Amino acid sequence: MQVGKQSIQFEEAPYILGSASIVGKKEGEGPLGDYFDVVGQDDKFGQDTWEEAESTLQKEAFQMAVGKAGLKKEDIRYLFSGDLLGQNIATSFGLMDYQVPLFGLYGACSTCGEALSLGAMCVAAGYADYVVSMTSSHFASAEKQFRFPLEYANQRPLSATWTVTGSGAYVLGKKRSKARITGITTGKIVDYGIKDSMNMGAAMAPAAADTICRHLSDFGRTPEDYDKIITGDLGTIGQEILCDLAKQQGYDISIVHTDCGIEIYDGKKQGTGAGGSGCGCSAATLSAYFLKMVQEGKYKKILFVPTGALLSTVSFNEGMTVPGIAHAVVIEHAS
Amino acid sequence: MQVGKQSIQFEEAPYILGSASIVGKKEGEGPLGDYFDVVGQDDKFGQDTWEEAESTLQKEAFQMAVGKAGLKKEDIRYLFSGDLLGQNIATSFGLMDYQVPLFGLYGACSTCGEALSLGAMCVAAGYADYVVSMTSSHFASAEKQFRFPLEYANQRPLSATWTVTGSGAYVLGKKRSKARITGITTGKIVDYGIKDSMNMGAAMAPAAADTICRHLSDFGRTPEDYDKIITGDLGTIGQEILCDLAKQQGYDISIVHTDCGIEIYDGKKQGTGAGGSGCGCSAATLSAYFLKMVQEGKYKKILFVPTGALLSTVSFNEGMTVPGIAHAVVIEHAS
Repeated sequence: MQVGKQSIQFEEAPYILGSASIVGKKEGEGPLGDYFDVVGQDDKFGQDTWEEAESTLQKEAFQMAVGKAGLKKEDIRYLFSGDLLGQNIATSFGLMDYQVPLFGLYGACSTCGEALSLGAMCVAAGYADYVVSMTSSHFASAEKQFRFPLEYANQRPLSATWTVTGSGAYVLGKKRSKARITGITTGKIVDYGIKDSMNMGAAMAPAAADTICRHLSDFGRTPEDYDKIITGDLGTIGQEILCDLAKQQGYDISIVHTDCGIEIYDGKKQGTGAGGSGCGCSAATLSAYFLKMVQEGKYKKILFVPTGALLSTVSFNEGMTVPGIAHAVVIEHAS
Repeated sequence: MQVGKQSIQFEEAPYILGSASIVGKKEGEGPLGDYFDVVGQDDKFGQDTWEEAESTLQKEAFQMAVGKAGLKKEDIRYLFSGDLLGQNIATSFGLMDYQVPLFGLYGACSTCGEALSLGAMCVAAGYADYVVSMTSSHFASAEKQFRFPLEYANQRPLSATWTVTGSGAYVLGKKRSKARITGITTGKIVDYGIKDSMNMGAAMAPAAADTICRHLSDFGRTPEDYDKIITGDLGTIGQEILCDLAKQQGYDISIVHTDCGIEIYDGKKQGTGAGGSGCGCSAATLSAYFLKMVQEGKYKKILFVPTGALLSTVSFNEGMTVPGIAHAVVIEHAS
C-alpha cells in the first residue's frame, strides 16, 4: 500500500527468516565483537586479493544466512545485492556460484536499505517465497577504490571514517519469525554541495534527515514511535548534523538516534576517526546486534536507515560534489 | 504470479506509457538514425566532461519520456536507473535534480532489462502509479572507464564492440497504452571462463542463452511464439554463439533472433567492429525502433533480453574472468 509521497506499508509484511554477519579482525575487536557470527583473523580471508576477500565475505554471509533460515540455496528465488567497488565485482564474483537470479544494486553505503526494500517488496507482492538481500564492504578494497594505496600510509583527518570489512545477509519470506519488515521509505538524492571526500558524514547527513523526516511525515509518526532510529554510517560528525537538520524540520530524533558507524568501533581506542562506514557497516551491525534486540522483543520497532555517499574517484577528481542518499526500513518485533 | 524457476507473469500487466531515446552523432548516422527522438551533434552535449555528457543524456531522456507520457516529474513515484561507470555517477548526477526516490541499479549492459523488470514488478504490485526505468552509456566515458584514453588511439580487434552514446527511458504505469510488459525472467550470472575484455559478445552469449532457454521453459513457449527475440549487445560474434548454445538446449532461435548491437550501426561502413554495446545500446534501440513496432501492432509479442558483461578494470587486471548476465522482458502489443 502506498503511503504518503515516498513510502510503502506492506499489507502482508514479510519476515526476516535468517540473517548472518561476518567481519574482519578490527571489527571483531570493537564493542560489538562478540555479536558477529564470524570474525576473520586474516583480512584476506584466504584469498590473493582484497577484492576476492570481499567476495568471500559475501559468499560466506549468504551461506550462513540461508542455513540459519533452515533453507537451501535452491530455495532462494532472487538475490538483491551490491557493493562499493566499481561495477559490483565483490557481488558478481562472490555470489556467482550460487546460481540464483540476481538483481545487482548500487546505492553506495545505503545499499543494505535498498536491498532490504526491494527484497521486501518482492516477497510481499508474492513474486518470491524466499529472497536474500545483502551487501558487503572491505577496508582495503575500498581504500584502493576510493582513496590511496594502503602502502602509501596517508594521514587521515579526524572527520574521515573507517570502511568496515564485513558483510550482512538477510533471508526474507512469508513464513513467520520474530522480526518483520512492515514498511519502507525510499530516499531521493540530496546534495548540499559538500566536496570533501574525507567527510562523508557531512555529505550523507542531509539525505538521512530528508528520508527520516519524510518517513515520519508519510506514516504520521513521531520519533518516539521507534525504540531506535539507526542510520548506517554517519559517524559522530554526521550524527550531529542529522539531529540539527531533523530538528529544523520539527523532529527531535536525538534521544532515539544511533548510528552503526558509531557503534561498531571504539573510536578513541581503535583510531577509526569519526566512525565506521561502508556497505558492510550497517549490514553487519543490523544482523549482529539491532536485529537480535528486535527478535528478543527488547526493541518493538526500529527504523533502519543506511546512508550512502554517491561519488566515484572520477566524479570527485572532476570537482563534482558528493551527494547523499538514504533508504529507510521499518523492522518490527513479531511474536 | 511466479512462473517456473526464474520468471514472473503479471496478473495486471503494467503498460509502457511513454518512452524516449537520445543518442550521439555516430548512432544518428547509423541505420536507425531517423528513429531516435534526439540525435546530438556534439557528443559532449554542451558539458565539460564525458561523464557530465552522459548525465545529460539521462536528464534529457527522463524529461522526454515523462513528457511523452503526459505526466510531470512529480507524478513519478520511483526511478530505477543505473549506468556503466564506477559507482553510477551518470545516474546520480543526471537524475538528482528531479528529486524522485531512486533505486540505483548495476547490471552492466543488462541494466535496461533489470530496470524494466523491477519497474514492472513495482507497478504491477500497486507500489506506484508511475515509475521510470532507464539507463545510459557513453562511448568516451566507457572507454575511459574500461579501456584506453581516447587520445591513445589504440587499435581495436574485430571482435570488439563500440559503446553506444545514448540513453533510453520508459514510463510504466497502469493506464492503458499500446504496449505492456506481461512477464519477466531474471538472469543468473553465467561464467564460461572468457578472459578477453575485447570480446564481450562471447562473454555474454552464454548468459543470454541461459536466460532465453529458461524463459521459454518457464513459460512453456517456443521461439515462434515471439515475433522477435532481441538481445542487447552481443554483436555478430555473440549472436552466432547464442544461436548455437540455444540449439544445444533444443531451441532454434535463429529465425526470430536479432540484436540491438547489430541493428544500431552499419558495422562495415561505420567501423564499429562486432556491433554496438553499452547500457544505452539496448535502451535507446528498444525505445526508438522495436517498441514502436509493438505499439503499431507490427509485432504482437517480443522478448527483450539486454545482456551484461560483469567486469571492472580491477577484476580484469587481477586476471579474473568476464562473467555475463541477461534479463528478459516480454513486451506485448495492447489495443
